[in-house]
Amino acid sequence: MITKKFGERVRELRIKNNMSQEKFAIHIDMDRTYLASVESGKRNISLENINKIAVGLSITLEELFKGI
Amino acid sequence: MITKKFGERVRELRIKNNMSQEKFAIHIDMDRTYLASVESGKRNISLENINKIAVGLSITLEELFKGI
Repeated sequence: MITKKFGERVRELRIKNNMSQEKFAIHIDMDRTYLASVESGKRNISLENINKIAVGLSITLEELFKGI
Repeated sequence: MITKKFGERVRELRIKNNMSQEKFAIHIDMDRTYLASVESGKRNISLENINKIAVGLSITLEELFKGI
């Protein structure tokens, strides 16, 4: 399932950046519970929010989707 | 704007694949007017629909986002 793969990728990259869910959520101005549900693959996240995550991780969308 | 860049990329790849909007929409089981608005950058498209487009183009999500 694509939402699950995406969520796992976000979690992996967030942890690699040494950020807690809370810290990252604040950093990208996203509700922490929403971010948690995205990472759990429970949200059919929109392009604008996907982009917010990429910007927050300082990577391209291409890099964000690597391996998905 | 990310939705605009994404729409342009989809259009570019669809044309490269020699498919009309109508043909591609049928191919990926998406409403043609919805696809048209995505290509025009007017939709904050969801991950599942983004994935549908990648599958329909027979490319990875990484490839779909290349250069965006």
